[in-house]
Amino acid sequence: MTARIEADYLIETPGDPERAAMAMAGEQSSGTFVTVPGETPELRARSAAQVERLSVIGTAEAPSLPGSAHRDGPVSRAELTLSWPMGNVGPDIVNLLPTVAGNLFELKQFSGLRLLDIRLPKAFAERYTGPKFGIDGTRWLAGVEHGPLIGTIVKPSVGLGAGQTADLAGQLAAAGIDFIKDDELQANGPSCPFDDRARAVMDRLDRSADKYGKKVMYAFNVTGEVDEMRRRHDLVRDLGGTCIMVSLNAIGLTGLLALSRHSELPIHAHRNGWGYLSRHPMLGWSYPAWSKFWRLAGADHMHVNGLKNKFSESDDSVIASARSLFEPMFDDHPCVPMPVFSSGQSAVQPDETFARLGRADLIYAAGGGIMAHPDGPAAGVDSLRDAWTAAMRRIPPHEYARTHPALSRALDTYAS
Amino acid sequence: MTARIEADYLIETPGDPERAAMAMAGEQSSGTFVTVPGETPELRARSAAQVERLSVIGTAEAPSLPGSAHRDGPVSRAELTLSWPMGNVGPDIVNLLPTVAGNLFELKQFSGLRLLDIRLPKAFAERYTGPKFGIDGTRWLAGVEHGPLIGTIVKPSVGLGAGQTADLAGQLAAAGIDFIKDDELQANGPSCPFDDRARAVMDRLDRSADKYGKKVMYAFNVTGEVDEMRRRHDLVRDLGGTCIMVSLNAIGLTGLLALSRHSELPIHAHRNGWGYLSRHPMLGWSYPAWSKFWRLAGADHMHVNGLKNKFSESDDSVIASARSLFEPMFDDHPCVPMPVFSSGQSAVQPDETFARLGRADLIYAAGGGIMAHPDGPAAGVDSLRDAWTAAMRRIPPHEYARTHPALSRALDTYAS
Repeated sequence: MTARIEADYLIETPGDPERAAMAMAGEQSSGTFVTVPGETPELRARSAAQVERLSVIGTAEAPSLPGSAHRDGPVSRAELTLSWPMGNVGPDIVNLLPTVAGNLFELKQFSGLRLLDIRLPKAFAERYTGPKFGIDGTRWLAGVEHGPLIGTIVKPSVGLGAGQTADLAGQLAAAGIDFIKDDELQANGPSCPFDDRARAVMDRLDRSADKYGKKVMYAFNVTGEVDEMRRRHDLVRDLGGTCIMVSLNAIGLTGLLALSRHSELPIHAHRNGWGYLSRHPMLGWSYPAWSKFWRLAGADHMHVNGLKNKFSESDDSVIASARSLFEPMFDDHPCVPMPVFSSGQSAVQPDETFARLGRADLIYAAGGGIMAHPDGPAAGVDSLRDAWTAAMRRIPPHEYARTHPALSRALDTYAS
Repeated sequence: MTARIEADYLIETPGDPERAAMAMAGEQSSGTFVTVPGETPELRARSAAQVERLSVIGTAEAPSLPGSAHRDGPVSRAELTLSWPMGNVGPDIVNLLPTVAGNLFELKQFSGLRLLDIRLPKAFAERYTGPKFGIDGTRWLAGVEHGPLIGTIVKPSVGLGAGQTADLAGQLAAAGIDFIKDDELQANGPSCPFDDRARAVMDRLDRSADKYGKKVMYAFNVTGEVDEMRRRHDLVRDLGGTCIMVSLNAIGLTGLLALSRHSELPIHAHRNGWGYLSRHPMLGWSYPAWSKFWRLAGADHMHVNGLKNKFSESDDSVIASARSLFEPMFDDHPCVPMPVFSSGQSAVQPDETFARLGRADLIYAAGGGIMAHPDGPAAGVDSLRDAWTAAMRRIPPHEYARTHPALSRALDTYAS
């Protein structure tokens, strides 16, 4: 356990990495671009950020980002760790952001800067609840003891009215789904108002629960202002719903804290916008660092994309993200959310997903992988369950498919 | 006035720009990566995003970002406009974010994607208050009728206790400053608790007001959870303070709305973290688009960096940002905040700043430019006022400096 706040960075600089690291430590604590009278040696000793470690990892022929001190020529890359005393910011994740991820990305000393990870003193664990439900609570509410929750997203994302959304939810419940989520594009659109949708969907899912003996977990997208989110949460809870969803980058850390401190339901955390935070490898955020803020703030389910996804993220990055979520943040306060795999998922990817991750404590969400199965949505759900059963038993999918026709059709359909 | 929501993008794609634009419109509205049964022609007509305009602007030799469909070879660049019907999202800026700035940055079709601007239907103007004070309210509260508010930042950023911060504020008030702000690194650190600082600083500024006849505007950094921010706002108001400050990327849009709907004071909006949102020219956000969300949400002062700043941003970008803030968002609801120029500013930059901007309705914040003036802080403040007076009268600074020694010393000191 660290006594100071620590953050790891990947940096790229046209100058001396050691000097650049010192400038960064100064900018993010007691220094500024000129010496000011109040910056005494005592004050620096008390408040300055320190460079704990620095290792040069290589060079590149030209700067990755514009605006650095030198426009052309070779640059050095390094990994470094900065640390801050707790007296500067205290156990406060909202104000930790300007400290570890504030102005530093604009510094001229760098032609690349990415936050890789953070480590926090125990006082943070004492202040923040973390996920109230996480993996165990979600399994209990969804009635899924082992293996992944097989899930899907309402598609089309927008355009369906409340009644049509409920019809689709009923159809998916009949198909045996465990989990359904609103799309992030649908929260309270005039064509599908939140309250109408929540009432219609829960009415349908209650009837399905009576019929099939299991209540599907539906993540209602409550994204909005604080009072709206809390009121929508209360409506879902009162209707017997078991999950709410938010777009993290839309509501912000203060928004999530306002909701999570109020919430009595698992919070499904959508990361849309993640591309602008992460897509350039020498700029922005790595997922392990970014997700730790939301884990402390109470996110129960965290999106990580999926293998062979329809987006630009590599499989290695997806697996690294999911693994990072399973690592405890503190020994006695792990803050482990349930990872959500989605984006272009079908019965094709479970085999490799389980082989690389070694766990099935996740939500596995497929849209087309269920709805576009040639034998219909029930076969789509079956194919995903079969694929996961095979994966967890280490049976090659094509072998298992010989006796499981839904999986067989799915592999033929989606493998191309 | 547009009847649909519109967003302009800069894109880069290894494929056909027209096809990529269609994929983007689909992903951000009713489409997904495979055809799903519910996506009827009627639904598409009602809910699909449309490509309104597309113009190819050039090519590049290689992709700007990794993860696109093709790793090497030439790519096309284009500017395009998408539009959405109001039925999808309604007048809701929080949920507008996932629509115009959500998953699309991760699409494989693109090796670059940047949001350039947005235009919104009138219903948004009706729902959101915008800046409650803006330029006129700030001038009135600060007692500055013409020209910029001459401001500074508490430095060292962290490390001073409440009493030391108050001493510094008193010294700056005696020096004739109009505006002081907390650093974004200091909100409620254990070494400088918010309440102690607010009480100590306001006590000192009240005494200065009695002595010099003017109450300095002090932007207290209230960044935190919703209840904390509101309580701190109330304390500042009750103490007779005239401004509060927040870190926008830390609190998020929902956080700012929760504060601004409650606030009776101007909100000074700090953009730390802006680098990770903007520094790669083919990724993320342009300032005109980004700032419109915060303008609608109630930001009264918006940071734009400054000319010849210590960061990586170009002067052209700084001026474009500041100009964009002066452009009305709606004819009868302009939502114009006061731009804040800062970062490495001194008496050197006002001449060019005014020449390029044509206005002085701004806060001009200097740290070292005041505190490190060889004749002391009062001379530092005088040098900035002199520089602005010369600039607004179109008198060359060195000519004006002949009869203004504080300016003369400042130009000698900072021009190197």
